[in-house]
Amino acid sequence: MRFAKVAVVGVGLIGGSFALALKAARIAGEITGAGRGAANLKLALEHGIIDSIAPDAASAAAGADLVLVAAPVAQSKDIFAALAPVLKPGALVTDAGSTKRDVVDAARAALGNRISRFVPAHPIAGAEQSGAAAASAELFRNRRVILTPLPENAAADVQAVEDAWRACGARVARMACDEHDAVLAAVSHLPHLLAYALVHEVAGRDNCAQLFGFAAGGFRDFTRIASSHPEMWRDICTANRDRLLEELDRYTEKLHALRPLVEGGDGAALQKVFEEARAARQRWLAGEYE
Amino acid sequence: MRFAKVAVVGVGLIGGSFALALKAARIAGEITGAGRGAANLKLALEHGIIDSIAPDAASAAAGADLVLVAAPVAQSKDIFAALAPVLKPGALVTDAGSTKRDVVDAARAALGNRISRFVPAHPIAGAEQSGAAAASAELFRNRRVILTPLPENAAADVQAVEDAWRACGARVARMACDEHDAVLAAVSHLPHLLAYALVHEVAGRDNCAQLFGFAAGGFRDFTRIASSHPEMWRDICTANRDRLLEELDRYTEKLHALRPLVEGGDGAALQKVFEEARAARQRWLAGEYE
Repeated sequence: MRFAKVAVVGVGLIGGSFALALKAARIAGEITGAGRGAANLKLALEHGIIDSIAPDAASAAAGADLVLVAAPVAQSKDIFAALAPVLKPGALVTDAGSTKRDVVDAARAALGNRISRFVPAHPIAGAEQSGAAAASAELFRNRRVILTPLPENAAADVQAVEDAWRACGARVARMACDEHDAVLAAVSHLPHLLAYALVHEVAGRDNCAQLFGFAAGGFRDFTRIASSHPEMWRDICTANRDRLLEELDRYTEKLHALRPLVEGGDGAALQKVFEEARAARQRWLAGEYE
Repeated sequence: MRFAKVAVVGVGLIGGSFALALKAARIAGEITGAGRGAANLKLALEHGIIDSIAPDAASAAAGADLVLVAAPVAQSKDIFAALAPVLKPGALVTDAGSTKRDVVDAARAALGNRISRFVPAHPIAGAEQSGAAAASAELFRNRRVILTPLPENAAADVQAVEDAWRACGARVARMACDEHDAVLAAVSHLPHLLAYALVHEVAGRDNCAQLFGFAAGGFRDFTRIASSHPEMWRDICTANRDRLLEELDRYTEKLHALRPLVEGGDGAALQKVFEEARAARQRWLAGEYE
Protein backbone atom coordinates (compact mmCIF):
# COMPACT_ATOMS: atom_id res chain seq x y z
CA MET A 1 0.00 0.00 0.00
CA ARG A 2 1.60 3.20 -1.14
CA PHE A 3 -0.79 5.70 0.46
CA ALA A 4 -2.43 4.48 3.66
CA LYS A 5 -4.68 7.49 3.84
CA VAL A 6 -5.81 9.58 0.88
CA ALA A 7 -7.88 12.76 1.02
CA VAL A 8 -9.87 13.97 -1.97
CA VAL A 9 -11.06 17.55 -1.76
CA GLY A 10 -13.78 17.87 -4.35
CA VAL A 11 -15.25 14.45 -5.14
CA GLY A 12 -16.55 15.25 -8.61
CA LEU A 13 -15.84 13.60 -11.92
CA ILE A 14 -12.08 14.01 -11.54
CA GLY A 15 -11.72 13.56 -7.78
CA GLY A 16 -14.08 10.59 -7.74
CA SER A 17 -12.34 8.95 -10.67
CA PHE A 18 -8.94 9.43 -9.00
CA ALA A 19 -10.27 7.72 -5.87
CA LEU A 20 -11.69 4.82 -7.87
CA ALA A 21 -8.54 4.45 -9.95
CA LEU A 22 -6.25 4.42 -6.88
CA LYS A 23 -8.46 1.76 -5.32
CA ALA A 24 -8.44 -0.29 -8.50
CA ALA A 25 -4.64 -0.05 -8.55
CA ARG A 26 -4.59 -1.13 -4.90
CA ILE A 27 -2.28 1.66 -3.85
CA ALA A 28 -4.68 3.50 -1.53
CA GLY A 29 -5.94 2.60 1.90
CA GLU A 30 -8.75 4.66 3.34
CA ILE A 31 -10.01 7.44 1.09
CA THR A 32 -11.74 10.37 2.73
CA GLY A 33 -13.69 12.91 0.76
CA ALA A 34 -14.58 16.52 1.44
CA GLY A 35 -16.46 19.04 -0.62
CA ARG A 36 -19.23 21.53 -0.90
CA GLY A 37 -22.08 19.27 -1.97
CA ALA A 38 -23.43 17.06 0.81
CA ALA A 39 -25.65 15.07 -1.57
CA ASN A 40 -22.74 14.47 -3.93
CA LEU A 41 -20.50 13.28 -1.07
CA LYS A 42 -23.23 10.96 0.18
CA LEU A 43 -23.56 9.51 -3.32
CA ALA A 44 -19.78 9.06 -3.50
CA LEU A 45 -19.84 7.21 -0.17
CA GLU A 46 -22.76 5.01 -1.24
CA HIS A 47 -21.03 4.14 -4.52
CA GLY A 48 -17.85 3.15 -2.68
CA ILE A 49 -15.87 5.95 -4.30
CA ILE A 50 -14.79 7.21 -0.89
CA ASP A 51 -14.73 5.37 2.44
CA SER A 52 -15.69 8.28 4.64
CA ILE A 53 -16.87 11.88 4.50
CA ALA A 54 -14.92 14.60 6.26
CA PRO A 55 -16.68 17.80 7.32
CA ASP A 56 -14.13 19.98 5.56
CA ALA A 57 -10.85 19.96 3.65
CA ALA A 58 -8.70 20.31 6.77
CA SER A 59 -10.34 17.35 8.51
CA ALA A 60 -9.94 15.24 5.38
CA ALA A 61 -6.27 16.14 4.97
CA ALA A 62 -5.29 15.68 8.61
CA GLY A 63 -3.14 12.58 8.72
CA ALA A 64 -3.39 11.96 4.96
CA ASP A 65 -0.42 10.66 3.00
CA LEU A 66 -1.75 11.99 -0.27
CA VAL A 67 -4.18 14.85 -0.84
CA LEU A 68 -5.84 15.56 -4.18
CA VAL A 69 -7.36 19.00 -4.63
CA ALA A 70 -9.98 18.66 -7.37
CA ALA A 71 -12.23 21.67 -7.08
CA PRO A 72 -12.86 24.60 -9.44
CA VAL A 73 -9.58 26.51 -9.44
CA ALA A 74 -10.90 29.70 -7.82
CA GLN A 75 -11.26 27.70 -4.60
CA SER A 76 -7.55 26.84 -4.53
CA LYS A 77 -6.56 29.65 -2.18
CA ASP A 78 -9.09 28.70 0.49
CA ILE A 79 -8.41 25.00 0.17
CA PHE A 80 -4.63 25.32 0.42
CA ALA A 81 -5.06 27.65 3.41
CA ALA A 82 -7.13 24.94 5.08
CA LEU A 83 -4.54 22.26 4.30
CA ALA A 84 -1.48 24.24 5.43
CA PRO A 85 -1.79 23.71 9.20
CA VAL A 86 -2.79 20.04 9.07
CA LEU A 87 -0.47 18.47 6.51
CA LYS A 88 1.61 15.83 8.22
CA PRO A 89 5.36 15.61 7.50
CA GLY A 90 5.89 13.65 4.32
CA ALA A 91 2.37 14.18 3.05
CA LEU A 92 2.09 14.86 -0.67
CA VAL A 93 -0.44 17.16 -2.29
CA THR A 94 -1.40 17.19 -5.94
CA ASP A 95 -4.26 18.80 -7.78
CA ALA A 96 -6.35 18.55 -10.92
CA GLY A 97 -6.70 22.19 -11.87
CA SER A 98 -7.07 23.01 -15.56
CA THR A 99 -4.87 26.04 -15.01
CA LYS A 100 -1.56 25.93 -13.20
CA ARG A 101 -0.06 29.38 -12.68
CA ASP A 102 -2.94 30.58 -10.49
CA VAL A 103 -3.06 27.33 -8.52
CA VAL A 104 0.70 27.39 -7.93
CA ASP A 105 0.54 31.02 -6.78
CA ALA A 106 -2.33 30.22 -4.41
CA ALA A 107 -0.51 27.18 -3.06
CA ARG A 108 2.73 29.06 -2.56
CA ALA A 109 0.96 31.85 -0.69
CA ALA A 110 -0.91 29.46 1.57
CA LEU A 111 1.55 26.65 2.14
CA GLY A 112 4.68 28.67 2.95
CA ASN A 113 7.63 26.36 3.36
CA ARG A 114 5.39 23.36 2.85
CA ILE A 115 5.09 24.31 -0.83
CA SER A 116 7.65 21.58 -1.49
CA ARG A 117 4.92 19.03 -0.70
CA PHE A 118 2.74 20.23 -3.56
CA VAL A 119 3.26 18.69 -6.99
CA PRO A 120 0.83 20.41 -9.38
CA ALA A 121 -0.96 18.27 -11.92
CA HIS A 122 -3.57 18.58 -14.62
CA PRO A 123 -5.29 15.42 -15.82
CA ILE A 124 -6.59 16.20 -19.30
CA ALA A 125 -9.62 14.06 -18.91
CA GLY A 126 -12.56 16.37 -18.67
CA ALA A 127 -16.01 15.50 -19.82
CA GLU A 128 -19.19 17.50 -20.03
CA GLN A 129 -20.54 15.35 -17.21
CA SER A 130 -19.68 16.38 -13.71
CA GLY A 131 -20.18 15.09 -10.18
CA ALA A 132 -19.30 11.83 -8.46
CA ALA A 133 -22.06 10.04 -10.36
CA ALA A 134 -19.96 10.36 -13.53
CA ALA A 135 -16.74 9.07 -11.91
CA SER A 136 -14.99 6.03 -13.36
CA ALA A 137 -11.86 4.10 -12.45
CA GLU A 138 -11.03 4.16 -16.17
CA LEU A 139 -11.35 7.92 -16.74
CA PHE A 140 -7.61 8.49 -16.86
CA ARG A 141 -6.73 5.37 -18.88
CA ASN A 142 -4.33 6.49 -21.63
CA ARG A 143 -5.18 10.13 -20.97
CA ARG A 144 -2.52 12.75 -20.53
CA VAL A 145 -1.66 14.15 -17.12
CA ILE A 146 0.65 17.15 -17.14
CA LEU A 147 2.77 17.67 -14.04
CA THR A 148 4.22 21.15 -13.57
CA PRO A 149 6.82 20.46 -10.85
CA LEU A 150 8.05 23.33 -8.71
CA PRO A 151 11.70 24.22 -8.02
CA GLU A 152 10.94 23.44 -4.37
CA ASN A 153 9.83 19.86 -5.08
CA ALA A 154 12.16 16.97 -4.27
CA ALA A 155 12.67 14.73 -7.27
CA ALA A 156 11.41 11.73 -5.31
CA ASP A 157 8.17 13.51 -4.45
CA VAL A 158 7.54 14.44 -8.06
CA GLN A 159 8.17 10.84 -8.98
CA ALA A 160 5.79 9.58 -6.28
CA VAL A 161 3.01 11.82 -7.58
CA GLU A 162 3.80 10.81 -11.15
CA ASP A 163 3.56 7.18 -10.09
CA ALA A 164 0.16 7.77 -8.50
CA TRP A 165 -1.19 9.26 -11.73
CA ARG A 166 0.45 6.48 -13.75
CA ALA A 167 -1.25 3.95 -11.47
CA CYS A 168 -4.54 5.54 -12.61
CA GLY A 169 -3.59 4.60 -16.16
CA ALA A 170 -2.49 8.06 -17.27
CA ARG A 171 0.37 9.02 -19.56
CA VAL A 172 2.31 11.61 -17.56
CA ALA A 173 4.23 14.51 -19.06
CA ARG A 174 6.08 17.35 -17.34
CA MET A 175 6.03 20.99 -18.30
CA ALA A 176 6.62 24.45 -16.82
CA CYS A 177 3.38 25.86 -15.47
CA ASP A 178 3.30 28.89 -17.78
CA GLU A 179 3.93 26.65 -20.76
CA HIS A 180 1.05 24.45 -19.60
CA ASP A 181 -1.28 27.43 -19.40
CA ALA A 182 -0.31 28.62 -22.87
CA VAL A 183 -0.81 25.19 -24.45
CA LEU A 184 -4.14 24.58 -22.76
CA ALA A 185 -5.41 28.06 -23.61
CA ALA A 186 -4.98 27.18 -27.29
CA VAL A 187 -6.37 23.65 -27.42
CA SER A 188 -8.87 23.63 -24.58
CA HIS A 189 -9.78 26.96 -23.02
CA LEU A 190 -10.37 28.83 -26.27
CA PRO A 191 -12.47 26.03 -27.84
CA HIS A 192 -14.67 25.99 -24.75
CA LEU A 193 -15.22 29.74 -24.99
CA LEU A 194 -15.95 29.45 -28.72
CA ALA A 195 -18.47 26.66 -28.19
CA TYR A 196 -20.27 28.49 -25.40
CA ALA A 197 -20.32 31.60 -27.62
CA LEU A 198 -21.93 29.79 -30.54
CA VAL A 199 -24.66 28.16 -28.47
CA HIS A 200 -25.32 31.43 -26.66
CA GLU A 201 -25.58 33.27 -29.97
CA VAL A 202 -28.05 30.74 -31.40
CA ALA A 203 -30.05 30.57 -28.16
CA GLY A 204 -30.50 34.33 -28.20
CA ARG A 205 -32.19 34.45 -31.60
CA ASP A 206 -35.90 34.91 -32.10
CA ASN A 207 -35.94 31.78 -34.24
CA CYS A 208 -33.76 29.71 -31.93
CA ALA A 209 -36.31 26.88 -31.86
CA GLN A 210 -36.07 26.54 -35.63
CA LEU A 211 -32.28 26.83 -35.58
CA PHE A 212 -31.87 24.15 -32.92
CA GLY A 213 -34.55 22.11 -34.67
CA PHE A 214 -32.36 21.69 -37.73
CA ALA A 215 -29.01 21.52 -35.95
CA ALA A 216 -27.48 18.10 -36.45
CA GLY A 217 -24.44 16.01 -35.67
CA GLY A 218 -21.87 18.61 -36.65
CA PHE A 219 -23.40 21.18 -34.33
CA ARG A 220 -23.78 18.59 -31.59
CA ASP A 221 -20.10 17.66 -31.57
CA PHE A 222 -18.85 21.22 -32.11
CA THR A 223 -20.83 22.35 -29.07
CA ARG A 224 -20.44 19.32 -26.82
CA ILE A 225 -18.06 21.24 -24.58
CA ALA A 226 -20.69 23.98 -24.18
CA SER A 227 -22.40 21.53 -21.85
CA SER A 228 -19.41 21.74 -19.51
CA HIS A 229 -19.55 22.88 -15.90
CA PRO A 230 -20.14 26.68 -16.01
CA GLU A 231 -18.47 27.47 -12.70
CA MET A 232 -15.39 25.43 -13.54
CA TRP A 233 -15.07 27.23 -16.86
CA ARG A 234 -15.72 30.63 -15.32
CA ASP A 235 -12.76 29.94 -13.04
CA ILE A 236 -10.55 28.75 -15.87
CA CYS A 237 -11.34 31.79 -18.01
CA THR A 238 -10.54 34.18 -15.20
CA ALA A 239 -7.49 32.26 -13.95
CA ASN A 240 -5.90 31.99 -17.38
CA ARG A 241 -7.17 35.34 -18.61
CA ASP A 242 -4.07 36.66 -20.34
CA ARG A 243 -3.32 33.49 -22.26
CA LEU A 244 -6.96 33.07 -23.20
CA LEU A 245 -7.13 36.66 -24.45
CA GLU A 246 -4.07 36.06 -26.60
CA GLU A 247 -5.70 33.01 -28.11
CA LEU A 248 -9.03 34.75 -28.56
CA ASP A 249 -7.31 37.61 -30.37
CA ARG A 250 -5.34 35.26 -32.59
CA TYR A 251 -8.52 33.40 -33.45
CA THR A 252 -10.43 36.59 -34.15
CA GLU A 253 -7.60 37.64 -36.46
CA LYS A 254 -7.88 34.29 -38.18
CA LEU A 255 -11.58 34.89 -38.77
CA HIS A 256 -10.75 38.37 -40.08
CA ALA A 257 -8.28 36.77 -42.48
CA LEU A 258 -10.83 34.23 -43.69
CA ARG A 259 -13.66 36.73 -44.11
CA PRO A 260 -12.42 38.27 -47.38
CA LEU A 261 -11.99 34.79 -48.84
CA VAL A 262 -15.66 34.12 -48.18
CA GLU A 263 -16.75 37.59 -49.26
CA GLY A 264 -14.72 37.43 -52.45
CA GLY A 265 -15.92 33.92 -53.24
CA ASP A 266 -12.30 32.79 -53.35
CA GLY A 267 -13.02 29.08 -53.54
CA ALA A 268 -9.44 28.10 -54.27
CA ALA A 269 -8.10 29.88 -51.20
CA LEU A 270 -10.87 28.50 -48.99
CA GLN A 271 -10.28 24.99 -50.27
CA LYS A 272 -6.56 25.34 -49.52
CA VAL A 273 -7.32 26.35 -45.91
CA PHE A 274 -9.80 23.51 -45.51
CA GLU A 275 -7.39 20.98 -47.02
CA GLU A 276 -4.52 22.10 -44.82
CA ALA A 277 -6.70 22.00 -41.72
CA ARG A 278 -8.11 18.61 -42.61
CA ALA A 279 -4.65 17.20 -43.33
CA ALA A 280 -3.30 18.47 -39.99
CA ARG A 281 -6.24 17.00 -38.13
CA GLN A 282 -5.83 13.65 -39.88
CA ARG A 283 -2.15 13.60 -38.90
CA TRP A 284 -3.23 14.31 -35.33
CA LEU A 285 -5.84 11.53 -35.39
CA ALA A 286 -3.21 9.18 -36.79
CA GLY A 287 -1.13 9.79 -33.67
CA GLU A 288 1.63 11.76 -35.33
CA TYR A 289 1.79 14.22 -32.44
CA GLU A 290 1.62 11.73 -29.56
CA MET B 1 -41.77 -0.98 -57.11
CA ARG B 2 -42.07 2.76 -57.05
CA PHE B 3 -39.04 3.70 -59.17
CA ALA B 4 -38.12 1.11 -61.79
CA LYS B 5 -34.95 2.95 -62.70
CA VAL B 6 -33.01 5.27 -60.41
CA ALA B 7 -29.97 7.35 -61.34
CA VAL B 8 -27.53 8.59 -58.71
CA VAL B 9 -25.18 11.31 -59.88
CA GLY B 10 -22.39 11.40 -57.34
CA VAL B 11 -22.18 8.06 -55.53
CA GLY B 12 -20.51 9.32 -52.37
CA LEU B 13 -21.58 9.07 -48.75
CA ILE B 14 -24.98 10.65 -49.46
CA GLY B 15 -25.65 9.27 -52.94
CA GLY B 16 -24.49 5.80 -51.98
CA SER B 17 -26.55 5.79 -48.80
CA PHE B 18 -29.63 6.93 -50.74
CA ALA B 19 -29.15 4.02 -53.16
CA LEU B 20 -28.73 1.53 -50.33
CA ALA B 21 -31.71 2.89 -48.41
CA LEU B 22 -34.01 2.78 -51.47
CA LYS B 23 -32.95 -0.82 -52.07
CA ALA B 24 -33.53 -1.71 -48.44
CA ALA B 25 -36.99 -0.14 -48.67
CA ARG B 26 -37.63 -2.14 -51.86
CA ILE B 27 -38.86 0.83 -53.79
CA ALA B 28 -36.08 0.97 -56.39
CA GLY B 29 -35.41 -1.29 -59.35
CA GLU B 30 -32.11 -0.85 -61.17
CA ILE B 31 -29.86 1.85 -59.75
CA THR B 32 -27.30 3.38 -62.07
CA GLY B 33 -24.48 5.53 -60.79
CA ALA B 34 -22.41 8.23 -62.43
CA GLY B 35 -19.67 10.42 -61.09
CA ARG B 36 -16.17 11.75 -61.40
CA GLY B 37 -14.26 9.06 -59.57
CA ALA B 38 -13.90 5.81 -61.50
CA ALA B 39 -12.42 3.95 -58.53
CA ASN B 40 -15.22 5.12 -56.26
CA LEU B 41 -17.88 4.01 -58.77
CA LYS B 42 -16.20 0.63 -59.14
CA LEU B 43 -16.22 0.21 -55.37
CA ALA B 44 -19.91 1.20 -55.27
CA LEU B 45 -20.68 -1.43 -57.91
CA GLU B 46 -18.66 -4.10 -56.10
CA HIS B 47 -20.41 -3.32 -52.82
CA GLY B 48 -23.82 -3.63 -54.48
CA ILE B 49 -24.62 0.02 -53.84
CA ILE B 50 -25.36 0.55 -57.53
CA ASP B 51 -26.23 -2.04 -60.18
CA SER B 52 -24.42 -0.42 -63.06
CA ILE B 53 -22.07 2.41 -63.90
CA ALA B 54 -23.02 5.01 -66.48
CA PRO B 55 -20.29 6.93 -68.31
CA ASP B 56 -21.83 10.28 -67.42
CA ALA B 57 -24.80 11.95 -65.74
CA ALA B 58 -26.84 12.13 -68.97
CA SER B 59 -26.43 8.42 -69.66
CA ALA B 60 -27.39 7.59 -66.09
CA ALA B 61 -30.48 9.78 -66.17
CA ALA B 62 -31.75 8.66 -69.58
CA GLY B 63 -34.87 6.61 -68.91
CA ALA B 64 -34.64 7.08 -65.12
CA ASP B 65 -37.79 7.51 -63.05
CA LEU B 66 -35.89 9.19 -60.23
CA VAL B 67 -32.60 11.05 -60.37
CA LEU B 68 -30.63 12.06 -57.29
CA VAL B 69 -27.98 14.74 -57.76
CA ALA B 70 -25.54 14.30 -54.91
CA ALA B 71 -22.36 16.13 -55.92
CA PRO B 72 -20.63 19.19 -54.47
CA VAL B 73 -23.03 22.04 -55.23
CA ALA B 74 -20.76 23.94 -57.61
CA GLN B 75 -21.29 21.11 -60.09
CA SER B 76 -25.06 21.63 -60.12
CA LYS B 77 -25.14 23.78 -63.24
CA ASP B 78 -23.25 21.29 -65.39
CA ILE B 79 -25.14 18.32 -64.03
CA PHE B 80 -28.59 19.85 -64.57
CA ALA B 81 -27.52 20.90 -68.07
CA ALA B 82 -26.61 17.29 -68.76
CA LEU B 83 -29.93 16.03 -67.39
CA ALA B 84 -32.15 18.53 -69.23
CA PRO B 85 -32.23 16.88 -72.65
CA VAL B 86 -32.57 13.29 -71.43
CA LEU B 87 -35.18 13.44 -68.64
CA LYS B 88 -38.13 11.32 -69.66
CA PRO B 89 -41.68 12.62 -69.10
CA GLY B 90 -42.73 11.98 -65.52
CA ALA B 91 -39.17 11.60 -64.26
CA LEU B 92 -38.48 13.19 -60.89
CA VAL B 93 -35.23 14.84 -59.86
CA THR B 94 -34.13 15.58 -56.33
CA ASP B 95 -30.79 16.56 -54.88
CA ALA B 96 -28.77 16.52 -51.70
CA GLY B 97 -27.12 19.92 -51.80
CA SER B 98 -26.28 21.57 -48.49
CA THR B 99 -27.30 24.90 -50.01
CA LYS B 100 -30.52 25.41 -51.90
CA ARG B 101 -30.74 28.87 -53.48
CA ASP B 102 -27.76 28.30 -55.76
CA VAL B 103 -28.88 24.80 -56.69
CA VAL B 104 -32.41 25.99 -57.48
CA ASP B 105 -31.05 28.83 -59.62
CA ALA B 106 -28.77 26.43 -61.48
CA ALA B 107 -31.60 23.96 -62.01
CA ARG B 108 -34.01 26.62 -63.22
CA ALA B 109 -31.46 27.96 -65.69
CA ALA B 110 -30.66 24.51 -67.06
CA LEU B 111 -33.99 22.70 -66.94
CA GLY B 112 -36.24 25.36 -68.46
CA ASN B 113 -39.83 24.20 -68.37
CA ARG B 114 -38.76 20.88 -66.88
CA ILE B 115 -37.96 22.70 -63.64
CA SER B 116 -41.29 21.37 -62.35
CA ARG B 117 -39.67 17.90 -62.22
CA PHE B 118 -37.05 19.06 -59.71
CA VAL B 119 -37.92 18.86 -56.02
CA PRO B 120 -34.90 20.23 -54.09
CA ALA B 121 -33.84 18.42 -50.95
CA HIS B 122 -31.16 18.58 -48.31
CA PRO B 123 -30.60 15.52 -46.17
CA ILE B 124 -28.95 16.76 -42.98
CA ALA B 125 -26.88 13.68 -42.57
CA GLY B 126 -23.34 14.62 -43.29
CA ALA B 127 -20.35 13.00 -41.75
CA GLU B 128 -16.68 13.73 -41.97
CA GLN B 129 -16.29 10.52 -43.96
CA SER B 130 -16.93 10.71 -47.64
CA GLY B 131 -17.09 8.38 -50.62
CA ALA B 132 -19.14 5.28 -51.37
CA ALA B 133 -17.09 3.27 -48.87
CA ALA B 134 -18.78 5.20 -46.06
CA ALA B 135 -22.32 4.71 -47.41
CA SER B 136 -24.94 3.05 -45.25
CA ALA B 137 -28.61 2.15 -45.74
CA GLU B 138 -29.16 3.58 -42.25
CA LEU B 139 -27.52 6.98 -42.77
CA PHE B 140 -30.82 8.83 -43.04
CA ARG B 141 -32.62 6.95 -40.27
CA ASN B 142 -34.32 9.59 -38.09
CA ARG B 143 -32.28 12.34 -39.71
CA ARG B 144 -33.88 15.47 -41.05
CA VAL B 145 -34.38 16.03 -44.75
CA ILE B 146 -35.48 19.52 -45.74
CA LEU B 147 -37.44 19.84 -48.97
CA THR B 148 -37.60 23.30 -50.49
CA PRO B 149 -40.40 22.81 -53.03
CA LEU B 150 -40.67 25.17 -55.99
CA PRO B 151 -43.79 27.02 -57.09
CA GLU B 152 -43.57 25.02 -60.32
CA ASN B 153 -43.74 21.65 -58.55
CA ALA B 154 -46.98 19.66 -58.62
CA ALA B 155 -48.08 18.69 -55.14
CA ALA B 156 -48.06 15.01 -56.07
CA ASP B 157 -44.46 15.22 -57.23
CA VAL B 158 -43.35 16.87 -54.02
CA GLN B 159 -45.15 14.14 -52.13
CA ALA B 160 -43.51 11.43 -54.20
CA VAL B 161 -40.05 12.82 -53.47
CA GLU B 162 -40.94 13.23 -49.81
CA ASP B 163 -42.07 9.59 -49.75
CA ALA B 164 -38.77 8.48 -51.25
CA TRP B 165 -36.80 10.27 -48.52
CA ARG B 166 -39.21 8.94 -45.87
CA ALA B 167 -38.62 5.45 -47.22
CA CYS B 168 -34.94 6.04 -46.40
CA GLY B 169 -35.97 6.58 -42.79
CA ALA B 170 -35.74 10.37 -42.79
CA ARG B 171 -37.97 12.88 -41.06
CA VAL B 172 -38.96 15.29 -43.81
CA ALA B 173 -39.67 19.00 -43.33
CA ARG B 174 -40.49 21.65 -45.91
CA MET B 175 -39.12 25.17 -46.02
CA ALA B 176 -38.51 28.00 -48.47
CA CYS B 177 -35.06 27.75 -50.00
CA ASP B 178 -33.78 31.08 -48.65
CA GLU B 179 -35.01 30.17 -45.20
CA HIS B 180 -33.16 26.87 -45.50
CA ASP B 181 -29.94 28.64 -46.43
CA ALA B 182 -30.24 31.04 -43.50
CA VAL B 183 -30.89 28.27 -40.97
CA LEU B 184 -28.09 26.06 -42.22
CA ALA B 185 -25.64 28.97 -42.35
CA ALA B 186 -26.15 29.39 -38.60
CA VAL B 187 -26.09 25.81 -37.39
CA SER B 188 -23.91 24.09 -39.96
CA HIS B 189 -21.97 26.28 -42.37
CA LEU B 190 -20.59 28.67 -39.76
CA PRO B 191 -19.53 25.90 -37.34
CA HIS B 192 -17.64 24.19 -40.17
CA LEU B 193 -15.80 27.41 -41.00
CA LEU B 194 -15.03 27.96 -37.30
CA ALA B 195 -13.69 24.45 -36.86
CA TYR B 196 -11.51 24.65 -39.96
CA ALA B 197 -10.25 28.02 -38.72
CA LEU B 198 -9.22 26.69 -35.32
CA VAL B 199 -7.35 23.69 -36.69
CA HIS B 200 -5.67 25.84 -39.34
CA GLU B 201 -4.62 28.33 -36.69
CA VAL B 202 -3.13 25.63 -34.46
CA ALA B 203 -1.49 23.84 -37.39
CA GLY B 204 0.26 27.05 -38.42
CA ARG B 205 2.05 27.53 -35.12
CA ASP B 206 5.72 26.78 -34.57
CA ASN B 207 4.76 24.59 -31.62
CA CYS B 208 1.87 22.85 -33.36
CA ALA B 209 3.25 19.42 -32.48
CA GLN B 210 3.11 20.30 -28.79
CA LEU B 211 -0.34 21.86 -29.11
CA PHE B 212 -1.79 18.85 -30.91
CA GLY B 213 0.08 16.59 -28.50
CA PHE B 214 -1.95 17.87 -25.58
CA ALA B 215 -5.24 18.39 -27.40
CA ALA B 216 -7.84 16.03 -26.02
CA GLY B 217 -11.47 15.01 -26.33
CA GLY B 218 -12.90 18.52 -26.27
CA PHE B 219 -10.68 19.60 -29.15
CA ARG B 220 -11.39 16.38 -31.01
CA ASP B 221 -15.16 16.85 -30.96
CA PHE B 222 -15.03 20.60 -31.53
CA THR B 223 -12.95 20.03 -34.65
CA ARG B 224 -14.52 16.83 -35.95
CA ILE B 225 -16.16 18.73 -38.78
CA ALA B 226 -12.77 20.13 -39.80
CA SER B 227 -12.15 16.67 -41.23
CA SER B 228 -15.01 17.24 -43.68
CA HIS B 229 -14.65 17.16 -47.46
CA PRO B 230 -12.75 20.37 -48.41
CA GLU B 231 -14.20 20.70 -51.90
CA MET B 232 -17.75 20.21 -50.67
CA TRP B 233 -17.25 22.89 -48.05
CA ARG B 234 -15.53 25.24 -50.45
CA ASP B 235 -18.66 25.02 -52.60
CA ILE B 236 -21.01 25.55 -49.67
CA CYS B 237 -19.08 28.59 -48.45
CA THR B 238 -19.12 30.20 -51.88
CA ALA B 239 -22.72 29.19 -52.68
CA ASN B 240 -24.12 30.50 -49.41
CA ARG B 241 -21.71 33.39 -49.14
CA ASP B 242 -24.04 36.16 -48.03
CA ARG B 243 -25.76 34.15 -45.32
CA LEU B 244 -22.45 32.77 -44.10
CA LEU B 245 -20.95 36.27 -43.93
CA GLU B 246 -23.92 37.43 -41.86
CA GLU B 247 -23.37 34.56 -39.46
CA LEU B 248 -19.63 35.08 -39.34
CA ASP B 249 -20.14 38.75 -38.53
CA ARG B 250 -22.69 37.99 -35.84
CA TYR B 251 -20.32 35.46 -34.31
CA THR B 252 -17.37 37.84 -34.46
CA GLU B 253 -19.53 40.42 -32.70
CA LYS B 254 -20.35 37.83 -30.08
CA LEU B 255 -16.65 37.25 -29.48
CA HIS B 256 -16.13 41.01 -29.28
CA ALA B 257 -18.87 41.14 -26.65
CA LEU B 258 -17.32 38.33 -24.63
CA ARG B 259 -13.78 39.68 -24.80
CA PRO B 260 -14.21 42.43 -22.18
CA LEU B 261 -15.77 39.90 -19.80
CA VAL B 262 -12.60 37.83 -20.04
CA GLU B 263 -10.32 40.86 -19.96
CA GLY B 264 -12.10 42.34 -16.95
CA GLY B 265 -12.17 39.03 -15.14
CA ASP B 266 -15.95 39.34 -14.91
CA GLY B 267 -16.57 35.85 -13.62
CA ALA B 268 -20.22 36.42 -12.82
CA ALA B 269 -21.02 37.60 -16.36
CA LEU B 270 -19.03 34.75 -17.91
CA GLN B 271 -20.75 32.21 -15.71
CA LYS B 272 -24.14 33.60 -16.75
CA VAL B 273 -23.27 33.20 -20.43
CA PHE B 274 -21.96 29.68 -19.85
CA GLU B 275 -25.03 28.70 -17.82
CA GLU B 276 -27.43 30.08 -20.40
CA ALA B 277 -25.60 28.33 -23.22
CA ARG B 278 -25.44 25.08 -21.32
CA ALA B 279 -29.14 25.23 -20.41
CA ALA B 280 -30.12 25.89 -24.03
CA ARG B 281 -27.98 23.01 -25.23
CA GLN B 282 -29.46 20.67 -22.61
CA ARG B 283 -32.97 21.64 -23.76
CA TRP B 284 -31.91 20.88 -27.30
CA LEU B 285 -30.44 17.50 -26.30
CA ALA B 286 -33.65 16.74 -24.43
CA GLY B 287 -35.55 17.12 -27.69
CA GLU B 288 -37.34 20.33 -26.83
CA TYR B 289 -36.76 21.73 -30.32
CA GLU B 290 -37.67 18.64 -32.34
